[in-house]
Amino acid sequence: MAHSILPCCSINSCLTTKTYLKNNNTCSAVFYDAVPLQTCKYPKTVLRSCTLRPRRQSIIYAAATPMSQEIEKSTLTGSPQSSSESSAKSKKVMIIGGDGYCGWATALHLSNKGYEVAIVDNLVRRLFDHQLGIDSLTPISSIQNRVRRWKSVTGKSIHVFIGDICDFEFLSEAFKSFEPDSVVHFGEQRSAPYSMIDRSRAVYTQHNNVIGTLNVLFAIKEFSQECHLVKLGTMGEYGTPNIDIEEGYITITHNGRTDTLPYPKQASSFYHLSKVHDSHNIAFTCKAWGIRATDLNQGVVYGVRTDETDMHEELCNRFDYDGVFGTALNRFCVQAAVGHPLTVYGKGGQTRGYLDIRDTVQCVELAIANPAKPGEFRVFNQFTEQFSVNDLARLVTNAGKKLGLEVQTISVPNPRVEAEEHYYNAKHTKLIELGLRPHLLSESLLDSLLNFAIKFKDQVDAAQIMPTVSWKKIGVKTRTVSV
Amino acid sequence: MAHSILPCCSINSCLTTKTYLKNNNTCSAVFYDAVPLQTCKYPKTVLRSCTLRPRRQSIIYAAATPMSQEIEKSTLTGSPQSSSESSAKSKKVMIIGGDGYCGWATALHLSNKGYEVAIVDNLVRRLFDHQLGIDSLTPISSIQNRVRRWKSVTGKSIHVFIGDICDFEFLSEAFKSFEPDSVVHFGEQRSAPYSMIDRSRAVYTQHNNVIGTLNVLFAIKEFSQECHLVKLGTMGEYGTPNIDIEEGYITITHNGRTDTLPYPKQASSFYHLSKVHDSHNIAFTCKAWGIRATDLNQGVVYGVRTDETDMHEELCNRFDYDGVFGTALNRFCVQAAVGHPLTVYGKGGQTRGYLDIRDTVQCVELAIANPAKPGEFRVFNQFTEQFSVNDLARLVTNAGKKLGLEVQTISVPNPRVEAEEHYYNAKHTKLIELGLRPHLLSESLLDSLLNFAIKFKDQVDAAQIMPTVSWKKIGVKTRTVSV
Repeated sequence: MAHSILPCCSINSCLTTKTYLKNNNTCSAVFYDAVPLQTCKYPKTVLRSCTLRPRRQSIIYAAATPMSQEIEKSTLTGSPQSSSESSAKSKKVMIIGGDGYCGWATALHLSNKGYEVAIVDNLVRRLFDHQLGIDSLTPISSIQNRVRRWKSVTGKSIHVFIGDICDFEFLSEAFKSFEPDSVVHFGEQRSAPYSMIDRSRAVYTQHNNVIGTLNVLFAIKEFSQECHLVKLGTMGEYGTPNIDIEEGYITITHNGRTDTLPYPKQASSFYHLSKVHDSHNIAFTCKAWGIRATDLNQGVVYGVRTDETDMHEELCNRFDYDGVFGTALNRFCVQAAVGHPLTVYGKGGQTRGYLDIRDTVQCVELAIANPAKPGEFRVFNQFTEQFSVNDLARLVTNAGKKLGLEVQTISVPNPRVEAEEHYYNAKHTKLIELGLRPHLLSESLLDSLLNFAIKFKDQVDAAQIMPTVSWKKIGVKTRTVSV
Repeated sequence: MAHSILPCCSINSCLTTKTYLKNNNTCSAVFYDAVPLQTCKYPKTVLRSCTLRPRRQSIIYAAATPMSQEIEKSTLTGSPQSSSESSAKSKKVMIIGGDGYCGWATALHLSNKGYEVAIVDNLVRRLFDHQLGIDSLTPISSIQNRVRRWKSVTGKSIHVFIGDICDFEFLSEAFKSFEPDSVVHFGEQRSAPYSMIDRSRAVYTQHNNVIGTLNVLFAIKEFSQECHLVKLGTMGEYGTPNIDIEEGYITITHNGRTDTLPYPKQASSFYHLSKVHDSHNIAFTCKAWGIRATDLNQGVVYGVRTDETDMHEELCNRFDYDGVFGTALNRFCVQAAVGHPLTVYGKGGQTRGYLDIRDTVQCVELAIANPAKPGEFRVFNQFTEQFSVNDLARLVTNAGKKLGLEVQTISVPNPRVEAEEHYYNAKHTKLIELGLRPHLLSESLLDSLLNFAIKFKDQVDAAQIMPTVSWKKIGVKTRTVSV
């Protein structure tokens, strides 16, 4: 059966998440849009401070009625991290996209460090898996079971708001209810290939990311003026210029005059472009409204384990290896584990910044602990090392040999439009100055990553490995998946 | 009665244009979305080449059924400019936003010059007038009467497609039907204050402009690969850097290496930002798909009369003087005419590029006649002179004196967030090199503009003159208009 997938309008996120619910009978989440504001039986003052009973599902439904669950008027200060909260007001962190790869690891890390954490997520990343017929290599629990398990393991509560930040009513209620001191915004469609599947996905990506971020900015201005926005950007915003890449700004002397200006952007997918648009929008609101913001231009993240996700198998993070959501190093490890040749796109000279997911969570923590000043738009390049694709292939080949794997490498036609041999030197000192202690890519980490991939190799669907999306062949017709 | 206005989703343009129809009983346009594709009784091959009878309304309804009008299978080559068409295939120009201030003047100019012109417009600019309770100083005819009058005066047909380019089905039909060689894209929400009224207008502006342009890019890739996109940008994309502004790109030497990169952007409203987003999206598609594009970073346009609009009063262009859509010089002339003090925002040192509307139409013609190469993203700064707001106030004061007007100037609190004293030196040589002969702002032009304003001064609604939109006070609540 062939069926079309994502239409291209802001109402789709609702439609699609509803579809997800329908497809997942075990999911008990009530979506915000299912219950109109007017029918909410809890006054806002109560909702603002309510939590669920310990050992129950710690989901807070913004202005919606939870199904068969008792809401009591206990305040958040009743939670385990209460002792520090009354004195440290800056510890409430809203993590938008907290059910995703970077978001989930960050939510657990910050919760473990004593921050009061709320996850805001519409779970659409899980829907993409269903629609594209792909899956995380690792089994991942529902968000409900994840936070329940976290509570049982650590005694710490994570609040969850299920809904779409493109729906401003939902986002407003989440802000008014949680009153965040920091917002970490991972909540965007984050795959370049996904944005290049067809016109409707390109439009979806830009609409979802740009309008979602605009709504976050308006919510901060209206409800939490002092709140620090930590926004995930990407190193891909800069492209591959023939000069050094600076952190967000560059001082230019031109015709005898000098100014420090935003670093020129040359993004190369509709996804990367959406991040460029966000950066410009955020910079403007910092100037016009005094918003305090940090843009984390993150490199390619690898690894899967963090201290917190290791605490219980139900806390396990997702591990994507497919051609749409999988990124270079993780994908190579899976390929090596199952005896698939490493797929180098084109010449393999494409060089990018990389970092361990344990450094992602560390960087976000550092940004929160050292907030931008009011009106400041601060940009950090968030990666620890540069590698070319060929470098990575060599590293994985060598690590594989040590484990007795015979690793082949093939060059496949590059589905992207990008320089395959180029100068690349990107600065990344600001997070180091704040205290980042990088986990550099070592042999032992590669061994561990490879062993992890080997452990799950029976779960690998080899059909998902090769690239299926072409930057040049993208068309206006919605691409369907045949079953 | 207070009523809310624009919701924030792509379907709104349909809703709003329908409202417009309802409010204007004389308008006979059938909107594309009113008649589903399936019910169209004319096969595409017919629609692609159909025109209406001479002297009848020259509206082509893409895949929609015109109301009580006869469509005959006459081809476009039957129109007066047919002799040149068969030989000059590059003369079909689609003008998106062709019912607006710059668009209408350009449509007539190109039609007059022998181009075959199609206007694509959803008429939402007329709706904004209704909703905000503002109006053009000059009486403007319906688009239907405008093209009918143009036909009767010159014998030339202008085709009209009524619909929203955010609706890709509509846009596809318009492309397949008209098969443009050039697309001039004026079809965006073009007011900075409008984009700063409230959250819903900010979101509307960015959605409408960014997604509309994405759709145009996909339509060109899919249906008219060779088509040259002439996109209206704005000088406001650059902001006011402390170095010279170049035309789109700047060569930077940094740490001993050199590259030519996109000129850094510092836009200062959600509208200006939407143009920055467009520029980045277009640049990417030129590189990835080989689109040929010219981005015209236009300055502030003044004047109202062009050779073509002067031919008949029913061809008259709009003249905005209100605080939302009116721009500096035009607004000052109206203020002088009615004895209202000239309203300088803040210190008045804000310096920008300006041009006569007769140069707008000339520049677009030059861009079309000298298209960008496949894959080229070309940027022209489209203005002829720089003035500060204080300069303009002085010029209007002096011109007023000569006509016996006593002109006062007041400084009002600046509703915008912008530097009021700054360096400004923007290059604008590329269009001159192509042959632009500027109409510089002269005393005689100012006399003529003032006399024009005096002629219509009884139509002025003084309540519309002062700024009502604040960059800093914009809120999340939809602003309503009380009647």
